Amino acid sequence: MIERGETAVSLADIARKSGLNSALVKYHFGNKDGLLLALLQRDASSAVKALDALLRVDASPTARLKLHVAGIVNAYYRSPYLNRLIHLLLHHRGPVVARAVSDFFVKPVAEFERRLLAEGTARGEFRAVDPLIFYFTLFGACDHLFYGRQALLHSFGVAEVGDELRRRLIAHVTDMVLGATLKREE
Amino acid sequence: MIERGETAVSLADIARKSGLNSALVKYHFGNKDGLLLALLQRDASSAVKALDALLRVDASPTARLKLHVAGIVNAYYRSPYLNRLIHLLLHHRGPVVARAVSDFFVKPVAEFERRLLAEGTARGEFRAVDPLIFYFTLFGACDHLFYGRQALLHSFGVAEVGDELRRRLIAHVTDMVLGATLKREE
Repeated sequence: MIERGETAVSLADIARKSGLNSALVKYHFGNKDGLLLALLQRDASSAVKALDALLRVDASPTARLKLHVAGIVNAYYRSPYLNRLIHLLLHHRGPVVARAVSDFFVKPVAEFERRLLAEGTARGEFRAVDPLIFYFTLFGACDHLFYGRQALLHSFGVAEVGDELRRRLIAHVTDMVLGATLKREE
Repeated sequence: MIERGETAVSLADIARKSGLNSALVKYHFGNKDGLLLALLQRDASSAVKALDALLRVDASPTARLKLHVAGIVNAYYRSPYLNRLIHLLLHHRGPVVARAVSDFFVKPVAEFERRLLAEGTARGEFRAVDPLIFYFTLFGACDHLFYGRQALLHSFGVAEVGDELRRRLIAHVTDMVLGATLKREE
């Protein structure tokens, strides 16, 4: 998928590339959705473990919020197929697959953010923020640059997200999130 | 498309619903992509005219920035199919269609933002902001709640974006954008 820059590869192609018997791959995963879900689950599971660790890190809620923002952008940057894979499975493969992705990926992230926001508010660092709005605006702000490659190319003349853009995106989204979350100076 | 809540309707269905001869519809628009592009262009053209007007409004850059954010969210809220339509044409119908959408929709919006940011920076209201990063983070932050209906439903138990969510989204994204754009207090 990284090679071809798209998720439209067939189960047979994947089997052939991995050197495995294609009937065996199909038996184990059921179908291509099953394989893609397993792939996302593997990637998501390390991200979710990192979030658990982040909840316990001995740093202020504000510091941990900054790490979270950087973590999302860096995950998309390191795994260029991840963004497309989530979009495909969450929005284009029907409600059963969408529910699976919601269960092992969206819910744990939303829960982490809910806890971090609650802790920050309790400690007087954050104002009261709706975790639902927080989740969608943060993910949207990080995601769109990686997902919107056609717009990036045709309207801005940029072929891919390089390291400089990655750093600017982290800085900008961090400012956005802090601007909407930190308690205002009275 | 609003009726069915999806963009996967055929040209024949559309012709039938409109009472027009389906061969005539096909002749005029070429194919379904041609029809969808024309639809988006019509909707986009009124949005783009509104942006032109917004550049000339007699108000501070900061005030106009707030109006712009509200304008994006309200456009998605009023036209529920708009979000899906842009995604479909920009990301799933190949480079020719993507370039057309970039030309009549993305570029004018990016140009408006570039000018507004330049004006605000010149007037000392804004810090220096990369218009590319500004565009993708703002659109992503507004778009994701409308696009991510499966996540909204399965992970947050919310079936659709109602008026209360609309207002909260505007407030939150406005805070985000101002947080990343306004000059910091020294």
